[in-house]
Amino acid sequence: MPLETDFPQNFEAREFKVVGKRPVRPDGVDKVTGRAKFGADAVAPGMLHAKILRSPHAHAKIVSIDTSKAEALAGVKAVVTRDDFPVHEAVKEDQELMSVLTNVMAREKALYDGHAVAAVAATDPRIAAQALKLIEVEYEVLDHVIDEDLAMQPDAPILHEHLGHEYGGGKPSNVAGVTEIGHGDVEKGFAEAEVIVERSFKTGAAHQGYIEPHACLANIGSDGRGELWCCTQGQFMVRDTCTQLLGMDVSNLRVTPSEIGGGFGGKTTVFIEPVAVALSRKAGKPVKIVMSRDEVFRATGPTASASLWIKVGAKKDGTITAADAILKYQGGAFPGSPVDMGAMASFACYALENVRAVGYDVVTNRPKQAAYRAPGAPMAAFAVESVISELAGELGMDPIDFRLKNAAGDGTKSSFGPTYDEIGLIETLEAAKKTEHYNSPLGPNQGRGVASGFWFNFGGQTAVSLNLNVDGTVALSVGTPDIGGSRASMCAMAAEELGCDYDDVYCIVADTASLGFNDVTDGSRVTFASGLATIQAARQAKQRMIDRAAKIWGIPSDAVKWENGAAHPSGPNAGEHEPLSIKDIAAMAGETGGPIAGHHEIAAEGAGPSFATHIVDAEIDRDTGRIDIKRYTVVQDAGKAVHPAYVEGQFQGGAVQGIGWALNEEYIYNDKGLLENPGFLDYRVPVASDLPMIETVIVEKPNPGHPYGVRGVGETSIVPPMGAIANAVSAAAKVRATEIPMSPPRMLKLLRDSEATAKAAE
Amino acid sequence: MPLETDFPQNFEAREFKVVGKRPVRPDGVDKVTGRAKFGADAVAPGMLHAKILRSPHAHAKIVSIDTSKAEALAGVKAVVTRDDFPVHEAVKEDQELMSVLTNVMAREKALYDGHAVAAVAATDPRIAAQALKLIEVEYEVLDHVIDEDLAMQPDAPILHEHLGHEYGGGKPSNVAGVTEIGHGDVEKGFAEAEVIVERSFKTGAAHQGYIEPHACLANIGSDGRGELWCCTQGQFMVRDTCTQLLGMDVSNLRVTPSEIGGGFGGKTTVFIEPVAVALSRKAGKPVKIVMSRDEVFRATGPTASASLWIKVGAKKDGTITAADAILKYQGGAFPGSPVDMGAMASFACYALENVRAVGYDVVTNRPKQAAYRAPGAPMAAFAVESVISELAGELGMDPIDFRLKNAAGDGTKSSFGPTYDEIGLIETLEAAKKTEHYNSPLGPNQGRGVASGFWFNFGGQTAVSLNLNVDGTVALSVGTPDIGGSRASMCAMAAEELGCDYDDVYCIVADTASLGFNDVTDGSRVTFASGLATIQAARQAKQRMIDRAAKIWGIPSDAVKWENGAAHPSGPNAGEHEPLSIKDIAAMAGETGGPIAGHHEIAAEGAGPSFATHIVDAEIDRDTGRIDIKRYTVVQDAGKAVHPAYVEGQFQGGAVQGIGWALNEEYIYNDKGLLENPGFLDYRVPVASDLPMIETVIVEKPNPGHPYGVRGVGETSIVPPMGAIANAVSAAAKVRATEIPMSPPRMLKLLRDSEATAKAAE
Repeated sequence: MPLETDFPQNFEAREFKVVGKRPVRPDGVDKVTGRAKFGADAVAPGMLHAKILRSPHAHAKIVSIDTSKAEALAGVKAVVTRDDFPVHEAVKEDQELMSVLTNVMAREKALYDGHAVAAVAATDPRIAAQALKLIEVEYEVLDHVIDEDLAMQPDAPILHEHLGHEYGGGKPSNVAGVTEIGHGDVEKGFAEAEVIVERSFKTGAAHQGYIEPHACLANIGSDGRGELWCCTQGQFMVRDTCTQLLGMDVSNLRVTPSEIGGGFGGKTTVFIEPVAVALSRKAGKPVKIVMSRDEVFRATGPTASASLWIKVGAKKDGTITAADAILKYQGGAFPGSPVDMGAMASFACYALENVRAVGYDVVTNRPKQAAYRAPGAPMAAFAVESVISELAGELGMDPIDFRLKNAAGDGTKSSFGPTYDEIGLIETLEAAKKTEHYNSPLGPNQGRGVASGFWFNFGGQTAVSLNLNVDGTVALSVGTPDIGGSRASMCAMAAEELGCDYDDVYCIVADTASLGFNDVTDGSRVTFASGLATIQAARQAKQRMIDRAAKIWGIPSDAVKWENGAAHPSGPNAGEHEPLSIKDIAAMAGETGGPIAGHHEIAAEGAGPSFATHIVDAEIDRDTGRIDIKRYTVVQDAGKAVHPAYVEGQFQGGAVQGIGWALNEEYIYNDKGLLENPGFLDYRVPVASDLPMIETVIVEKPNPGHPYGVRGVGETSIVPPMGAIANAVSAAAKVRATEIPMSPPRMLKLLRDSEATAKAAE
Repeated sequence: MPLETDFPQNFEAREFKVVGKRPVRPDGVDKVTGRAKFGADAVAPGMLHAKILRSPHAHAKIVSIDTSKAEALAGVKAVVTRDDFPVHEAVKEDQELMSVLTNVMAREKALYDGHAVAAVAATDPRIAAQALKLIEVEYEVLDHVIDEDLAMQPDAPILHEHLGHEYGGGKPSNVAGVTEIGHGDVEKGFAEAEVIVERSFKTGAAHQGYIEPHACLANIGSDGRGELWCCTQGQFMVRDTCTQLLGMDVSNLRVTPSEIGGGFGGKTTVFIEPVAVALSRKAGKPVKIVMSRDEVFRATGPTASASLWIKVGAKKDGTITAADAILKYQGGAFPGSPVDMGAMASFACYALENVRAVGYDVVTNRPKQAAYRAPGAPMAAFAVESVISELAGELGMDPIDFRLKNAAGDGTKSSFGPTYDEIGLIETLEAAKKTEHYNSPLGPNQGRGVASGFWFNFGGQTAVSLNLNVDGTVALSVGTPDIGGSRASMCAMAAEELGCDYDDVYCIVADTASLGFNDVTDGSRVTFASGLATIQAARQAKQRMIDRAAKIWGIPSDAVKWENGAAHPSGPNAGEHEPLSIKDIAAMAGETGGPIAGHHEIAAEGAGPSFATHIVDAEIDRDTGRIDIKRYTVVQDAGKAVHPAYVEGQFQGGAVQGIGWALNEEYIYNDKGLLENPGFLDYRVPVASDLPMIETVIVEKPNPGHPYGVRGVGETSIVPPMGAIANAVSAAAKVRATEIPMSPPRMLKLLRDSEATAKAAE
């Protein structure tokens, strides 16, 4: 009794009617008028407000916590500490969950400035803040380390006694893991090389810089069942994580995702949510937590900072003979930096016979990193693309031509293992070369850089339901929060499949009790995977409409064809009956068998990798070290751009975040290991006046694993910017920039050092 | 390409593991601790509060409405009147929708005391109330009529000029429709009768008396899309009705049902919801409306009052030869009284050769009636069962034996048309006869009455989704608000089918954007229809788990059997693999194909009719006319009692509401047609101290149309009480009571009149 009726997943060329258009975004009015409900907009009668006490030390043993005075304060309804977060069975078996638990609430030690140590729920936020001051924590301050290179020194302060013995000669170390990818014989390759470039690089830790701080409202009853409203990229992840951390049945927590004011990967894990649930459970009241910006910087996850070494050799004809990399990523106080993905992505753009990348996952006294747009890849690409462009220069080749000479294409065995199916890197390089931008002249003190970038793109678990309303409009329910326009794309794909208008489809992001499991919105997976499930659900609903029409006409289902949003009798029955539109069939659903729906659950595979090539013109002010981005063009393969305006927005957003990371954004720590710039005043993200209009070129090389050819587009666009900008800046500055951010002080030092070197050489 | 995999719907005898037990109700803690969110608990930032101006006249032409002064009041953000409710296309084509529209906001005329005439949304409820006073309405007061018999007089004031011409000799009348059921030759049957009883009866209008007044919160954006939170028995009905009335796409309104503090049919339509949506749309802000109790009585739907004539003839051996009825139901100011169902239900308990019932649907200047538990049936049963018992007395037969002699059974052609499949009336009569109650002695001034009752039980459209969580717990999503314990029943049925624990299933009532269409919770349809869909969804999920186990084991699905909540290899593979439990399969879902779910959409048919027999002992205080119910037993066929405690609760609740209707509840109008008792102080529902413990006997005659044999149970229990009580009271009073409520003044008059008659006869 097989249940699944599978519709084809593979790409089929077609004329699109809705997909590829630029309809109005469904969430636009709500966001512009303030009607959209974000994390902090949730309220409940009798709600308490919670605040979190955070470590003022980068590294300290927590000797004792005395909450008795706080608990005695009038208005305080619950206080939680490490004692309220016992290690439940599910956590014991899972190193990552144990890290999350320990990050959510410090246990034996505070591991970074801002690490949560206790939390108070009170009737008023001021009372909660006052209560925090009454909590007495006895710390024993320990030596700290915040830099990945220093953390790997033999005498570095050790964060975790149980960690890194295999990399510390039997003693604990701060190396949580080592990953290696590659194939061929790198040493042999370098022996064959005629030109070799070898350099070391450093990148700063950048925060995703989402506008909306984390916020949530938990409401747990005395039966242990409850609800959580929160701003997240994955309501099911929040549900499953909170219940596992707190020893609850998964079904007993219903999580509703709010509208989301940016995530970029930073909302793919939990920080405050288990604390709110624990406080609510203890207080027997709804508990709301809203993070301040200071807390967001100090205690949520920026991306890893990195120390990188790259060596690439080539023959004079431009053929790369070997490529080697050592990547050291610090991911904060817990294992799990994205160095594995960095290693895999590092040389992914190139067809290489001899390639290797070794990655070290390093722990330091910083907040636990979280995913940030193409996690791990931008740092590696910054270093690799710098070396690639430098090597092109050494060879006297145009940097695009050099890349084309070595570019991965259809059927290339990738540096990280799999053989590529159909990919679009070469197409982006060719398109970039043809742009007016690439062929335009530069002004004084300007340099032009190019870089390519890769992202895997994920598939993953997705469930979608599509329900036909009585008037023929369509209710589409997806489980992946919309961080980049996915509701518009889902509506377009459903409309395309059904043959109805875009405006006839209304898409919501469902809560965890209303829909099957969905992986988080990450990995640029949603337009691909939720889109695939949407198409399949629509095809199921369409088939059911065909079945109903057949029933109404008294003919077999296979004698009915679907065209232009209506069922038509076909073959010998053609013309025998008037076509039945969606509206007609919907109106009769009650009499012909009941509600008409389509559902699809999938562990999606076949997300096609995505490649991009960026071109950037940078100008340097040699007196101040300030870099101006004068012109910027993103050329990226979207597979099929379902909603081109959103795709361009993703291209532009990635480029802009890359510009910020390349030029200004970084975590600045003082010598006590305390973060000195936890706010948007001192942590400087680019604003509109810093930027040119980001130009975009959408390349469409269909993904063979999607009916419409869709590839994810959200992440690849942040991979090339730092390399491209470093190449442009190095050209303008006439000296190779190897550290980002290339902020004015750092550039000024680079210029002065280079001038001094030049002078010394005279 | 057929999509549906149908699992059997027909009854199969089985041993139950969960069904039939009495587990803790899932909504209990929330309701007891105050955490449950009812209609009035919804809030939104920037929310406005609305009040409704209501007609102070029973019948008046609305000459003009001037809202300018109200609109000018500071804090007033929107005012709506009839001008804001134009007649959209969908309404034009639908008489019932036109009635709803006109009921929601008066048009040319105010048709009853309390009819909505305008509404104001303001920043504060006091400002809204103040603004109501500033609205100037010029009325031209018209003659009114509130009684169904008077309304049918040729000179009665006419409510609708377009109505009833076919019953008014070509002129308008207050008769909106006439329905007739029956078969055989009634006149011939009466000619064969040896004893005939013929009587007329009156019943008062009773309100459902739900504890929670109607409340809602609408939030419509300037793009015309929005949300509505409300207390209702049918979120999809609210969505479809509001969008049709207001000219919106159905998909543009997302309706979330709150927890519900009672409905009993009274929340199967809309009153304030379209007004809130219209105000929110006009103000561009969220708008909340909460009805007062006064408004609930004056302007929501009580049931119809009725005037009834019954004639039944029998042979001396007790065989009924003919039964005839004329029913006149006034359903308030609009067509649509439940007289059709009253006519159908009137003689449904009996196997009759000659039967007829004619029903008149009469309009009067009262609020538009709404469904009330078994709508239409209790009034008819009151009259019919009074006559049946009186006839039994005339024949010298035990009233149960007389009913048994004529009872409908398996295969009886019902008086309203269909032939019964397997039904349980005879079983209830036999069980009633055996009760200790029926065989116990009576005290002085006491009388015993029995009556039987019937309800159709509905099926209807239902959609259910069931999703498996990663820890093996189950998320069940249904679309029928839980007014009588359906979440518990759904959990039990899902657990039964899957073989898991009741506590592993968590059931929610989904909003309209998250699930397919569901008819309202009415007609005692939910345990049957949503239960059927739940069972089918669970069977689909189970089959998918079997498929996954087969995949894991590398054997065909049909070589896997499901037992005790786990997949087992069977046949030649038996014992080859360790069983895989739900938990095991759930944990591996991501790797074996993705989320596991079951879905089912159905237009359910095969709801088995339900019958009951009630026994009541009543005592009369001959000095005051007060009736005391001394003992009460409900014997009813539940098909299969999924959760016996809830079934007993339904039996008891129906009996108690019937006691209230029989003894005290009624709408009292003054000579201006204004309601004089719009509050629980003067509209007296029974309280605990008025009542004996209601004893219950669950009869289980399986419904052949449900896998577990389930029949609806909620409504039948209110059908016999008034007849049973009238029979008991008549026995105690020694005079036939023919008007309800049998309130002290009415009973005292009856006693005095009867004593005077007796004295006159001496």
